[in-house]
Amino acid sequence: MTQPTAIDNIIPRSTILSFIHKLQDSCQKNKSYLCVGLDPDPRLMPPDTNTKEFILRIVESTSDLVCAYKINFAFFEAMGESGFQNLKYARDSIPGNIPVIADAKRADIGNTSLGYAEAIFGIMGFDAVTVNPYMGYDSILPFISYTDRGVFVLCRTSNPGASDFQDLCATNGDQTLPLYQMVSIKAREWNQHGNIGLVVGATWPEEIKIIRKQNPEMPLLIPGVGAQGGCIDLVSKYAIGPDGKMGIINSSRSIIHASAGKYYDKAARSKAEELRNQINLYRR
Amino acid sequence: MTQPTAIDNIIPRSTILSFIHKLQDSCQKNKSYLCVGLDPDPRLMPPDTNTKEFILRIVESTSDLVCAYKINFAFFEAMGESGFQNLKYARDSIPGNIPVIADAKRADIGNTSLGYAEAIFGIMGFDAVTVNPYMGYDSILPFISYTDRGVFVLCRTSNPGASDFQDLCATNGDQTLPLYQMVSIKAREWNQHGNIGLVVGATWPEEIKIIRKQNPEMPLLIPGVGAQGGCIDLVSKYAIGPDGKMGIINSSRSIIHASAGKYYDKAARSKAEELRNQINLYRR
Repeated sequence: MTQPTAIDNIIPRSTILSFIHKLQDSCQKNKSYLCVGLDPDPRLMPPDTNTKEFILRIVESTSDLVCAYKINFAFFEAMGESGFQNLKYARDSIPGNIPVIADAKRADIGNTSLGYAEAIFGIMGFDAVTVNPYMGYDSILPFISYTDRGVFVLCRTSNPGASDFQDLCATNGDQTLPLYQMVSIKAREWNQHGNIGLVVGATWPEEIKIIRKQNPEMPLLIPGVGAQGGCIDLVSKYAIGPDGKMGIINSSRSIIHASAGKYYDKAARSKAEELRNQINLYRR
Repeated sequence: MTQPTAIDNIIPRSTILSFIHKLQDSCQKNKSYLCVGLDPDPRLMPPDTNTKEFILRIVESTSDLVCAYKINFAFFEAMGESGFQNLKYARDSIPGNIPVIADAKRADIGNTSLGYAEAIFGIMGFDAVTVNPYMGYDSILPFISYTDRGVFVLCRTSNPGASDFQDLCATNGDQTLPLYQMVSIKAREWNQHGNIGLVVGATWPEEIKIIRKQNPEMPLLIPGVGAQGGCIDLVSKYAIGPDGKMGIINSSRSIIHASAGKYYDKAARSKAEELRNQINLYRR
C-alpha cells in the first residue's frame, strides 16, 4: 500500500481518484478492511423508522471505521417507486472519500450492459460494481471500460448453491480446474486497466487462499461474514495477510441490524468497530 | 398445446392464469411464437418522441401478432429517475392476456433474491423473469417459488462472450458436458413446479437442437434473431417444430426500431408480421 494521502471529506466526489486509489486511501486513513453493507431490511429496522434517516445514521456512525460501503440493489428495488430515490440518497449520504460499491450483480449482452454501466456509474456515480461472469467478456466490457471504477466479478459466492456450478471441474483444453478458478484466471486476462476485482464468499476460506494465490494484487470483495457465518480469522489471514493486500471484508445485517432499538446507530458502530479490530488482529 | 380458451382483454391481469397457460393461449390466439422486446433506445427512436408514447404505439400496433413481450430492464435503468415509472408504464400498457417477461437477468443469495422476486413479480406484476444460474439453486428458488410465474434460466446466451464459460467442458463426476448443458440438466431437476424455462440464443441453432432434445416440454426463450443475426429458419425448426413446442422467439431492435420515421408503429407492425409468418412457415 502507498502512504496516506491528504484526502478528506472536503474534496468533492467529482475529484476522481481511481477506485483502487480511493480504496487504498480510505483503508489507510480508517485503518480498516471492513466494508459495511447498507442493505436495509424493513422487517429488521426499528419500528417507524424512515429508510433515509436509518441509512444516514448508520453512515454517520460508521464512516470512520470502514474502507468502503456496499449497497445491494435488491433491497431498494423491493421498495418499488421510492427505490431509486432511496438508493441515490444512500449513495450520496456517503462521504466523498469513501468508495461505494454497487452490489447489483449485473451483466447482459454488450449492447445492453452499456445501459447498466451508464445507470450505475454515469447516473448514480458508484465507484464500483459487482458483475456476474456467466455471459463472458463482452457482457463485462462496458463496465471495465470505465477505467476509474472498480468491477468485482463473482467468482466463488458465499451461498450454499454456489457449488452447483462454480465447483464443477471444467476444462478449456489446457487446464482442468473448478469453474470458479477458471473465472479467476479469465478475470486476470481481462484486467488490462487494473480495475477488476473478484467476489469470494467468506464461507469458503480455502477457496479464498487459492484465489489470493492466483491473484496476489487483485482486490477481493468478501461477503458472508456475520449473518452468513463466514469465519473472520482465516478470511482475514488469507485475503489480507500481514502485508495488507486489498481484501475488503463485508458485513451487512450483523452491523446495520445489530439492534432494532432507539440507539441502533450506536449498536452498529460498536459492532463495526469490533469487526474492524478483529480483522486487523487476525490478518497479522 | 391445449385448445384456445375464452381469454381476452376484458379479463383483468389479476385473474391469474399460470404463466405457461397464458403463454399457450396467446400463442394460439395470435398464431404466433414471436416475442417483441420493448427495449427503447433513445438514439434510435424518432426525434422528440416521448418514451411512453413510443411504447404504447408499438404495443398497440403489434399486440395481435405476438405470444409475449419482453422488457429489458437495462434500457429503463439507464433513464435514471424516470426509469421505474416508464418500466411500470410499459408493463401495464400490455393487454392482460399477453404474458410479459422481465428480462432482468437477476440472481443473488437467497435472502437477497427474495427482494428482486418481490420487486419483479409482487410490485411490478411481471409474468416471468430471466435469471442467471451462476450462483446456483438458492439464488433462483425465490423466483420459482412464485409458482404461477415463469422463470427463464440463462443457458446458452446469444452474445460472443457466451463461449468463455458456457462452452467449457464440465464434469460433475457422473457426466462430462459443456457447462450450458449442465445448466440445462440442473434446470430440469429444479423444475418441480413446471414453471422453469431456458434462454438459448438464436445465434446457436445447433445448441438449441440439443437443449430442445434434453427438455422437450420446457419453454425456450430465444433472443438474438434480427439485429444479432440469428437464423430464423433453423431456430424455428429446432425450438418449435411442427407440433408447436413452446419456443418463444424474441426480436427487439429489428422490430421496434424498424423505422425512426413518423409511422414507426406501422413499420414495427409490418416487421413483426413478417417475422411471425416466417417463424410459422419454417417451424413446419
